[in-house]
Amino acid sequence: MKIALDAMGGDNAPKAIVEGAIAAAGLMEHEILLVGIPAEISRHLPVSCPKNVHIHPASEVVDMHEKPTEALRLKKDSSISVSVNLVKEGGAHAFVSAGNTGACTAACLLGWRQIHGFHRPAIGSTLPSLKEDFLLLDAGASPDVDPEHLVEFALMGRSFVMSMWGRENPTVHLLNIGEEPGKGNAFAKQAHALLATHDWFRGNIEGKDMYHGGIDIVVCDAFVGNIVLKCAEGVAEMIVEMIRSAVPTNPIAKLPYLPLKSLMAPLRKKMDYAEIGGSPLLGLNGLGFMAHGRSNAKAIRNALLQAAKAMEADLVGVLRESIAKELE
Amino acid sequence: MKIALDAMGGDNAPKAIVEGAIAAAGLMEHEILLVGIPAEISRHLPVSCPKNVHIHPASEVVDMHEKPTEALRLKKDSSISVSVNLVKEGGAHAFVSAGNTGACTAACLLGWRQIHGFHRPAIGSTLPSLKEDFLLLDAGASPDVDPEHLVEFALMGRSFVMSMWGRENPTVHLLNIGEEPGKGNAFAKQAHALLATHDWFRGNIEGKDMYHGGIDIVVCDAFVGNIVLKCAEGVAEMIVEMIRSAVPTNPIAKLPYLPLKSLMAPLRKKMDYAEIGGSPLLGLNGLGFMAHGRSNAKAIRNALLQAAKAMEADLVGVLRESIAKELE
Repeated sequence: MKIALDAMGGDNAPKAIVEGAIAAAGLMEHEILLVGIPAEISRHLPVSCPKNVHIHPASEVVDMHEKPTEALRLKKDSSISVSVNLVKEGGAHAFVSAGNTGACTAACLLGWRQIHGFHRPAIGSTLPSLKEDFLLLDAGASPDVDPEHLVEFALMGRSFVMSMWGRENPTVHLLNIGEEPGKGNAFAKQAHALLATHDWFRGNIEGKDMYHGGIDIVVCDAFVGNIVLKCAEGVAEMIVEMIRSAVPTNPIAKLPYLPLKSLMAPLRKKMDYAEIGGSPLLGLNGLGFMAHGRSNAKAIRNALLQAAKAMEADLVGVLRESIAKELE
Repeated sequence: MKIALDAMGGDNAPKAIVEGAIAAAGLMEHEILLVGIPAEISRHLPVSCPKNVHIHPASEVVDMHEKPTEALRLKKDSSISVSVNLVKEGGAHAFVSAGNTGACTAACLLGWRQIHGFHRPAIGSTLPSLKEDFLLLDAGASPDVDPEHLVEFALMGRSFVMSMWGRENPTVHLLNIGEEPGKGNAFAKQAHALLATHDWFRGNIEGKDMYHGGIDIVVCDAFVGNIVLKCAEGVAEMIVEMIRSAVPTNPIAKLPYLPLKSLMAPLRKKMDYAEIGGSPLLGLNGLGFMAHGRSNAKAIRNALLQAAKAMEADLVGVLRESIAKELE
């Protein structure tokens, strides 16, 4: 199968994107299409390019801060639009981008449309805890949703966690400002009532309890989800910086602090978005993985590996079955 | 002046509350009224009780997880209701509680009513950054609000930060999922448009940028605010626990890690809610400070010091002036 990789998207494009593709190519049979401006891509390709890495031309680039709908309307031949069309027309089977998330989401939604029964797409973000990871969704695709869409996000999350992480019968919590039913704003109360008719629903969860472990999936709207994601990033960065800045810079004075490095290493790894690589865009008739705008080669490599796994697991097929069963 | 302190509220009441009152009494001229069940309070009072600490009887206790409105209706003589009435009738000039926040907020709203011009109360939470603290509001008082209420929260925040922290002309940011105007859900877009008519407004801010410093006030609705607060708590606890658990327990093996303690001390201090003590409930005709349910004696002492400072600064008067000027 083939993965359309947006070679022009992200703060470090196209260099980090091309390097990530080369790193992933050796780990999979699938073909990787580097979609973008050929001259800019080929500059970063090694002399002996892996056989399963190809360039697919696209003449325009959507900037990271461009308005999504406007950019897509004006730049019909952008690397994002060309990639999405490749998947739509069967020329590729998954799309990976570290570019403008809003533009990617809009292009995928317009190009692929929702799977019948799902009304809004959702981005699933993998978050760490003291034990196993959990999936938070929607982390940024659909900021304005109705409470019933959170049930759809729960179904998407379950499909993803079952086929990609191999967890059987994963459970779902609703992110809320109190544990008891009846807590929260009007939206959360309605969502709770709708979710409560499903046996996989485990009730409300507060932000401080998500990180203890034992959680599979947490649902919320994209506004809350994206804020949670970025606040977690901000708090983690602040703490690491506070610890770092307390260590003396003088090479002799800092000697006693050297063991600290080994303590921080697993933490850094757990906090490093590049370890996961990409977040799936779920609910559409196509496979998309959104990588962090700051993605390095390692993040792109891992996002490609995720996309490969999702293609092999026929994630879109699993999602279709799950909503079809719900609608029965 | 007098502070009505809910002696029965919080996980460690009445012991920690009484101890906090004793610790604060020596640091202020004001009288502290320990409101609650006399027999349970007096058990924790020292033989030589400070002259400015008194017991004010209240026969009932609202539990931490009781439904606020129901609890207030059934328990007319609760320590919360009695304290709020004391402030209402002039028998006290501020209220401090580590009890059920929902019940406290509801009792204050019903007992004191909104300052003319403010439609909803807001809780202001002090959050740390790499530089100075900032105020996030609403952190939990009013989960369902309209965009115009965020302008009111901004005015409340400015009054608080000016009179309590002494910052001149503090600025306000809107918590959002993107920096550019036009980002976010429908609510955030409307709030941005309303806030943008004020010269103290500095636009949107993302969660990851709040913790860098240089921020005075961040406004959002209470659902988002409370989730941000608790997620920050959860992430910080996870990181501290990850570092702690990586240190060997064997006394010899852990020797090289001893310098870590000195690195973590300022971090722990910055993360410790007890350092701040209490969060103000703003917008009502009365002064209320909500302390964390897990408050220890130090948190209660610091909440009482905050309440004393707010009484001395006539914070309610400052809030009244600020909204009157806005309505001119």
